[in-house]
Parts: sequence; structure tokens; C-alpha cells
Amino acid sequence: MGSEAEHVLTLETLNPNVIQLQYAVRGPIVIRAAEIENEIRAGVKKPFTQVVKANIGDCHATGQKPITFIRQVLALCTYPELLASIEFPEDAKAQAKRILEGCKGQSIGSYTDSCGLMVVREDIADYIAQRDGYPSNPKDIVLSTGASDGIKSVMTLLLTGKGGNDSAGFMIPIPQYPLYSAAISEFGAYPIPYYLNEKNNWSLDVSELERAITEAKPKCKPRAIVVINPGNPTGSVLNKENIVEVIKFAHRHKLFLMADEVYQHNIWEEETKFVSFKQVLQEMGAPYDKMELASFMSASKGFMGECGYRGGYAEVINLEPEVRAHYYKSISAKLCPPVSGQAVIDCIVNPPKPGQQSYDTYMREKADVLAQLKEKAKFVTKLFNSIEGISCNKVMGAMYAFPRIYLPEKAIEAAKAAGQTPDSFYCFALLEETGICTVPGSGFREEPGTYHFRTTILPQIDELKTPSILEILKLKTVIQDHN
Amino acid sequence: MGSEAEHVLTLETLNPNVIQLQYAVRGPIVIRAAEIENEIRAGVKKPFTQVVKANIGDCHATGQKPITFIRQVLALCTYPELLASIEFPEDAKAQAKRILEGCKGQSIGSYTDSCGLMVVREDIADYIAQRDGYPSNPKDIVLSTGASDGIKSVMTLLLTGKGGNDSAGFMIPIPQYPLYSAAISEFGAYPIPYYLNEKNNWSLDVSELERAITEAKPKCKPRAIVVINPGNPTGSVLNKENIVEVIKFAHRHKLFLMADEVYQHNIWEEETKFVSFKQVLQEMGAPYDKMELASFMSASKGFMGECGYRGGYAEVINLEPEVRAHYYKSISAKLCPPVSGQAVIDCIVNPPKPGQQSYDTYMREKADVLAQLKEKAKFVTKLFNSIEGISCNKVMGAMYAFPRIYLPEKAIEAAKAAGQTPDSFYCFALLEETGICTVPGSGFREEPGTYHFRTTILPQIDELKTPSILEILKLKTVIQDHN
Repeated sequence: MGSEAEHVLTLETLNPNVIQLQYAVRGPIVIRAAEIENEIRAGVKKPFTQVVKANIGDCHATGQKPITFIRQVLALCTYPELLASIEFPEDAKAQAKRILEGCKGQSIGSYTDSCGLMVVREDIADYIAQRDGYPSNPKDIVLSTGASDGIKSVMTLLLTGKGGNDSAGFMIPIPQYPLYSAAISEFGAYPIPYYLNEKNNWSLDVSELERAITEAKPKCKPRAIVVINPGNPTGSVLNKENIVEVIKFAHRHKLFLMADEVYQHNIWEEETKFVSFKQVLQEMGAPYDKMELASFMSASKGFMGECGYRGGYAEVINLEPEVRAHYYKSISAKLCPPVSGQAVIDCIVNPPKPGQQSYDTYMREKADVLAQLKEKAKFVTKLFNSIEGISCNKVMGAMYAFPRIYLPEKAIEAAKAAGQTPDSFYCFALLEETGICTVPGSGFREEPGTYHFRTTILPQIDELKTPSILEILKLKTVIQDHN
Repeated sequence: MGSEAEHVLTLETLNPNVIQLQYAVRGPIVIRAAEIENEIRAGVKKPFTQVVKANIGDCHATGQKPITFIRQVLALCTYPELLASIEFPEDAKAQAKRILEGCKGQSIGSYTDSCGLMVVREDIADYIAQRDGYPSNPKDIVLSTGASDGIKSVMTLLLTGKGGNDSAGFMIPIPQYPLYSAAISEFGAYPIPYYLNEKNNWSLDVSELERAITEAKPKCKPRAIVVINPGNPTGSVLNKENIVEVIKFAHRHKLFLMADEVYQHNIWEEETKFVSFKQVLQEMGAPYDKMELASFMSASKGFMGECGYRGGYAEVINLEPEVRAHYYKSISAKLCPPVSGQAVIDCIVNPPKPGQQSYDTYMREKADVLAQLKEKAKFVTKLFNSIEGISCNKVMGAMYAFPRIYLPEKAIEAAKAAGQTPDSFYCFALLEETGICTVPGSGFREEPGTYHFRTTILPQIDELKTPSILEILKLKTVIQDHN
């Protein structure tokens, strides 16, 4: 028996779905970025002094400060002795007490129901009702470990348990957030890509949805359509008419609606407003208002950016009662989402009210973060469009730009020779030459023959300004070396 | 189109693996317990004043107090303004600073690496090396959202991506912790039950392992053996000789070793010691010390009982480097485990040292919790064996007793008539008559023709004492009504 033969798990026996799975946001380029950071620490000379991690929407990592009220409530829940401290405002104490009273044994160290604390679910339902102008039922709210976990739980319900032509088809936008393609790979499900129209500001055209589902129908059982609004990585925002069309399409083809709305607080255009799928569904009335819809939300984005707490929730409406019971059951073996993440969510959906002690600070901190992000969104759009060989749709929402790069033929050939996609090749060159870590467009999928990269708009504005222009221009030279 | 036809998800179209999945710890009896609590609140008269939730190892829910040091470090990480407070001990501040320095942007609100913070992984490796007397590599440590998430991630690697006779077989003890059967259902994998020997203190006999795998081989591809030590729900603890036998068996059949060691701090017999699979593997030397082993640990059990923080980790050794890379990649789409849970783990594996400010309190609090649990373990064992019609193996470890109940034939018939397993019938009667919520043995699987229930040993000792005896005796009358 050779040493090879000793292993249970080899590349031959490893779950092929795991081999297939890709999650570019933390892919090879990010591994290389970490290596470069180590090299810099070890004294290796580089054309830059630090790596700028523009690969991931990790707000606090790029210097954004936590919202004080959220952290005060969290500290009070964590260490209730602080409830006696005069250093903490009364409204934070009241919120912490309310959360603790919802916890068994008044400790956030006890398990909650698998759907989350009822007090938090009620607060979320109130927030949604206020946002949309339509009621929301706390029983339809299911908290999760970040939005990702909630998304995968809903996808799990939709799997067919079969392979081949009977596997579950999920319509996903291209470009998409790679959680979806990763989950589809892991589940052995079937991706049904529909292309967003880059030429028209990444618009979502129903004719393209029809093309996509028609092509896919012989190959799988289409079960759901995923819409990411505001768009990741595109930065686009859907208007109400567009949402109406998607809902009608889903109804026509009997698809479960999955609305990824985690960037609902991140809208940068004055004339643009976030409209939820839930609201439009309600406005449309029968028969649409009875359609199954899951909308996902996260504590990690918006103005709070509390990624590390892994807070998230789904509002899942119009499930058959028996299906809902199975849904609850299916998440019960996970026990419950982290309670501190649930508490973060509570502070987001139930913030201080006018007149309360923390109100002014909360509103100012929230406005500051959003104003900075807005400035960066506009700056980034302008920056990319000022560079020859790059074009970029307006960053209307979310936290990313997805500029298209026009690579010379020789650069494309050099990439192919190196066994990389052309945009991977570009992103690796960008990283090695400038220290800016982005994600190749191929990681989000893209229209064949087009090349992009995704960058967050999170780095501090000073980091983004003049140096970046110079760095990206410098990169042009790198690319042109292959011309 | 009828209203039925409007739903994408019906019992006919729902993922059959989800329908199959059962997680008894939060099953129908727990739903009924919550209803009874609501009834009591609404003024409905019951033969008891409160529901005793003995169904789940939820330490703080039953009155156990958090360890002060853990919560202090957590509060400091959450709200670093407290680092300036004289109310917090210096060692807690030092630990919080160390964790925050490991976090990007020095915030626990930023994402960590998907494997967790390196500082925590290093501390875990030190803890394991000290525990076992053999080195541990921080790169082999992967933090998770509770142990459950870590267990499912490792199981995912072992799936075959195929069904029928080619599906992955997981050997699981009977009785087992139902996470395993739930995950096997969800994954469409194949359970290979091996029976623990109740007559010999729930011992694990290799002849039974051989029987089980021989029977299963035509029906699946056996990939792994799960051992829960200390045992849940059995309360048994394996000795070194027994572990050696299991390792040799796994080697003989080329199985991946999955050691669920979350109760490693919960040992109640003076003459008994927890020995890890990792330690025994190392002691055995070649070829065994190159076997693939995953050992799982949790922040939710032991003396800390911080269930709500969802902290956990796996030490996974001897993976092929390429397989390890795929493992890391496969968890990357989950982004990272909750950072506050990672911080809890850090406090457990790297507690205050002698001479430090928090040392005495930490040691006293830890010893108090463990002493109380030990008293309860002994009390519960004695209690059940004092009741006619119940027998119970010694609770040597973990947090549960799994007494066998001998039901009269008429009670069994009545249960069948009610469409329940006899032990469900018993547990429902126990709940309705006494308010004690336990889990039917069938939820953990059991040898055909035997009936059990699982109860935690967590309720406060006063709650467990005389009233319980009376209540369980009262129950005997309930059962005898069917005799």
C-alpha cells in the first residue's frame, strides 16, 4: 500500500461537488494577497507599502467604525453587570433588557428558537411593515447566520433530491454573487444563467429571462429565480416596473422568488429608491400576492457593516403551512443563529427613536457612513470611466463597481498561455504591481468574450483618490507590455 | 388553476431529503412544550406550574451562570471603550486586545479568515498539545458555527455526489445524537447504524462494527465512522483500549475517523479520564498516526455552556494537501464563523493563568459548575434505577441520561393506536402530566423493541430532587392506566 492509498480522501474520492465549487471572493487572488502581506512584513520590497483589500465587502476591515448604539446594546447583553453603569445610555439599556428578557435564562448564551428570538422577529416584521406599507408576520421571519446561511436553507427546500434532467434549476443573474454558484455546485443543482444587459446599465430584460428558461427546461426542473437588488457585483438598482415584470415572469413559469435585498440601505442615486419585492407583490394584488417569496437581509452591509457577527434574516411568505413546518424543522438541527448576531439585527430594525438619548448620535453615524459610501460610489464610477480601456456603469447601489476592461489581444493570449482567464491575469497583475486586490469578473461569471473585475467601494477615499488613478494607469503599461 | 396548484413548494415537490430529515431534540414534543408554556401563561390549569426543559443541553437556559472572565473578554471585544474602564481586570483586557489585534480593522465586526482567526487557532493548537502531549498544527484547526456546522462541513467532503449503492455511508452509533441522522438525510447519504451495548454500559464492541459494515457494504460506499465520546445520549466514556480497537477497525476498512468530543470537559466518574482519539492515534504510531481524523469541539457544553454564541472548532489531521485546500475552499462561501463565538473559544482554550487577576474566580466558577453537574449525574443515575420499570446506565460523562423504560404491552398497543412510537407516547404523557420535557429514545434511534428517553442532567438539583421522583412515580400510574 503506497502512502497515496492510505488516504480516504483523495482528489479521486473527494465529493466532486466540492471540487466543482468556486467562491472567487475568497479565491486564489486573495490567497496571493495574503502571501504578499507576509512578504511585506518579512521585508520584501514591493512597488507599494500595503495591500488594499478591495475584494470583499468587509466594512470594518477598511476602517469603517461600528455604530456606537449597536455595540453598546451588544456589550450590555454580553455582560449585564454593565446595566448598572452610568456610562451607558438608557435607551441602549432598555433595548438590551428587552433582548435579554427574550432569552432563556436571560442569557444570550442560551439557544434561541431555530427561527430566532420572537422579540427580534417581531421587530423585523415592524420594520418591514413600515418600509413597505404592508403588514409582515413575525412567523414569516427566520433569522440566520448571515444572509448566506438563510439563502442556502431556502435553496435546500427547492432541491429535488434527483440528478441529471431532474435536478433543481436556479435562475441566477450573470454577473452574480458567487454564493449562488457555489451553493448550486455544492447541492449538485443546475444553474440557469440569465444575462444582465451591461449596455443598458445592467438592466434585467424579461426577454432574456425567457430565453434562459426555455434553453434550460430540457436540462433541469426550474424551481426558483434569484434577483440581487441592489445588484452585487453590478451596482444596479431595479425600478418598480422591472420588478413587476420579474414577478409576472416567475408566476408564468411557477418559480419561487428569491430576492437578495441585503443592500437595501445602500442607494447612491438621488432619484433612485429601493423598492422591495414584497411591496411590489402586495401592490400587484391577486394572484401575485400569494406567490412564494423569500427576501434576504444581512447585518453585514448597509451602514452597520457588522460582518463578523453573522446576523441575517429571511422573510419567507406564502409557504404552504405544511411546507413551512418542514422548513422550520430543516433548520432545527442547526440549533439557532448566533444570538449576538440576532441582537445586532434588532438594533438595525429597531433603532433609537427621536427624543431618545442615542437618537442623534445614531442618526449622525449612520448618515456619515452612507454619505462617505455615496461619495466613493460616485468617485469610483467617474474614475473608471476616465481611464482608457475601462468602462463602468454607474454605481447606483450596493458596495461594488464591476468595470469592464478591454484587453489587447496579446494580453489575452498571454493569459491563455499562463492558464488563466484574461481577467484573472489582469487582476493578478493589478495586485502584484499596485497592491490592489480585486476579484476577476470570471468569478461572478460574465458574458463570453467580455472581461471585468469587481472592486468594493469601501477603501478610504484618500486611498482611492490620486494614487489609485496613477496605479491603474501604471497597470495599463503592464498590460501594454503584452501588446 | 386551484390554489393548491399556485404553490411551487408542496409536499409533493418539496425536497424529499428535507421531508425525511428529523431532529428530535427540537421535534414535536418540544413544540407541544412551548404550547403548554403558552397555556400556563394564559391561565390554563395544569398539574404543574412550569415546564422543565430537559430536552436540550441548554445550560444557561436552566440557570447556569456564564463564566465571568469569558463575558468580560467578550464585552471588551464588543465595546473597546471599556478597555479604559477600571472595572475590568487586566488579564481580560490583555486577552481582548490580543483578539482585536487579530481582527481586521481591530473590529470583531470584520470577517475573519474562513478557518477563523489565526490567534485563536494557535491558542487551540496549544490547548490540544497540552491536553494530549502531542503537537497540534494551527493549520489543522478550523473554527465553525458551533460544532454542528463543523461536522456538516467535514461530512460534505465525504459525500460521493452519487445516490443508491454509491452513496456515502456514515457509521453512526445507536443511540446517536440526531444531528448525524439529520445531516445524513439532508445529504441523501446512507446511515450505517452500529449498536452500542446497553447491557455493558453502552460499550462499543468491534464485533458489532464488523457486523454493521459487512451488512452495509453492498448498499453504499462506507466512508467514515462517527464516534461520540463522551457519549450523547448515552453518558458513556470510552477507555483507551476501546479507542485503539475503533482506530484499528477504521484503518482496516479505510474509514475517515470523526470523533465528536464536545463533552471532553464533562467527566463524572473519579476513575474515568477523557482520552482523545488524536492522542491514541499518535501513541499507536505508524501506520495509524497518518490516518485522517476530525475531532470536534464546542463552546456550548463543558463548564461554559455558551450555546448562543455558536462557537466551535474541528481539528482535522492528515488530510492530503490538495484535499485540505478544497476543504478550506468549501467553507469559504460561508465567509466565517461568528467572531464573538471565536472569542468565546479562545477564552476556553486559553484561560487565565495562575497569578493572573482572574485566575481564582475562573477556576472557582469552573469547578462549581462541574461539581454541580457531577452531583446531578450521580443523582439522576440513582433516581432512575430506584424506579420500577426504569433502568439506567451510569452517567459517566456528557450531560444526559438515557434510561430504558419497560412499558406494559397495553401501553405499547395504546401508543400504536395513537400513531406514536411507545416512547413518544411515554414522553408526551410525562410532559402533559408532570411538565418535564424529554426526548423519546426513537429520536436517537434505539435497538428494536427497546424504549428509552433522553433527559439532560441540567435542571437545578432542587428541581430534580423529591418532586421529580413523585412526578415520575405519578407517571407510572398514567402508564399503568393502559395496563
